[in-house]
Amino acid sequence: MEPVIHYSCHEASDGQVKPADRHLLVEEPLYIQLGDEPLASLMRTPGHELDLTLGFLLTEGLIRSLADVGAISFCPAASGTNHVRVVAAPGGKLAAAPPPHRRIYSSCSVCGEDAIKEILESCPPFTLEPGRLSVARINALGEQMRRQQPLFRETGAPHAAALARRPLDDAALHDTIVREDVGRHNALDKAVGAALHKGMDLRQAVLFLSSRLSFEMVAKAARAGIADVVGASAPTALAVELANRLGMFLAGFARGAGVTVYSGVDALSPVRR
Amino acid sequence: MEPVIHYSCHEASDGQVKPADRHLLVEEPLYIQLGDEPLASLMRTPGHELDLTLGFLLTEGLIRSLADVGAISFCPAASGTNHVRVVAAPGGKLAAAPPPHRRIYSSCSVCGEDAIKEILESCPPFTLEPGRLSVARINALGEQMRRQQPLFRETGAPHAAALARRPLDDAALHDTIVREDVGRHNALDKAVGAALHKGMDLRQAVLFLSSRLSFEMVAKAARAGIADVVGASAPTALAVELANRLGMFLAGFARGAGVTVYSGVDALSPVRR
Repeated sequence: MEPVIHYSCHEASDGQVKPADRHLLVEEPLYIQLGDEPLASLMRTPGHELDLTLGFLLTEGLIRSLADVGAISFCPAASGTNHVRVVAAPGGKLAAAPPPHRRIYSSCSVCGEDAIKEILESCPPFTLEPGRLSVARINALGEQMRRQQPLFRETGAPHAAALARRPLDDAALHDTIVREDVGRHNALDKAVGAALHKGMDLRQAVLFLSSRLSFEMVAKAARAGIADVVGASAPTALAVELANRLGMFLAGFARGAGVTVYSGVDALSPVRR
Repeated sequence: MEPVIHYSCHEASDGQVKPADRHLLVEEPLYIQLGDEPLASLMRTPGHELDLTLGFLLTEGLIRSLADVGAISFCPAASGTNHVRVVAAPGGKLAAAPPPHRRIYSSCSVCGEDAIKEILESCPPFTLEPGRLSVARINALGEQMRRQQPLFRETGAPHAAALARRPLDDAALHDTIVREDVGRHNALDKAVGAALHKGMDLRQAVLFLSSRLSFEMVAKAARAGIADVVGASAPTALAVELANRLGMFLAGFARGAGVTVYSGVDALSPVRR
């Protein structure tokens, strides 16, 4: 299925209504099953479903690496691309647990700390080199991402996620993986899945997001082993807390000029303070 | 808990890194239980938890009206506001089913049509009067919403949802309910819950959203009985399809000038075509 359709609508101003042709972003459910059991149902933009599934498994903590997956394929009993089947590798670990943000907390005194602890249990803190990033190259990555957002140009609707390897030199930018989706979680998962399929080392990757940096987005990056996360918009307090606890670099409001750094400022190359 | 905290971060440009003080939007899990059973766990911005819970129940189709609810209260066994308990009214219908977007589809040929059918089964089409809206008053509602977004002004992070009764005259605008949250679904649910608590007739309400108009957002509006939905950004194809099937008014890119009308253009007051 195509990710964009043509649509006849109207442009209305205070005094006039005129017919207009516009492009709409397509949104369809994707049903993921683990063996013969249901695993998840996601509303997503068609395209890159196998990458999306692989990325989803990793960023939701259902697998630890590509080695846990035996096969990801479209369900042969269904037509189209809305139904994916996952098979664990022999000896691979593939949890059928619901993703954490859908989990029901059993504690009566639930709080953000519980959510952070859950990530810390499975993600060791990052220990990475200072001065590995610069604002200029972060901006260059953002610019590269914007050049690879055809669905956004057509519809104004999707989020985007970009992954590039460090150092962010011209060759790395040239190889940037950009994925778009109606859901920001899906855009991230599609980019992560594509990176895994291409053999990119996510521990050396910088993630650029068009969206806000919520706790779940930063948690997904952490589970994928990504230490450097930059967004075009604001983070939440819980996302910043998680990034600090894990030693991640987290910057927001990256819109072509300066950035606001919320965690891991030492990751920036030495400049005047 | 306060919805905003102060945070010491850094502003980094290409040649300089300077300490800066910023406000961060708080994000915390809310655990909702139905009687003694878990019902849902949402990441949300603290504030208006009882409205959020009531709105969530209605827009996810777990109740049909306020009459189905006996009580919504903070869990007495927990401190703080992260734990809410819902009790059904005697004779009230309160489903414990998971919200539709978390449901696993059983069909092997899952598609957007399945998702639409599910809404159509419980929501009769709207039959509403032509000419009930004007672009000028829609813009006035958007402006009113922006005036009531203190958390966005402080942090740049939350989404907002506004509800006002038709006709959108000055008195209606004065009574506009605006809610902000890190999640656009939560902002909508908080506004709907507040409207129910205040006795607003949602069948006469106009919903204005800061966010994109995904299928789930339009489906939530439909389940709440809201026929008029306007957003500052783009809708998806499936959201437009649902709005057309239900006879809703759906407009996007409402940013102070004209709007793009995707469904129900006859709802606009007669102007030149």
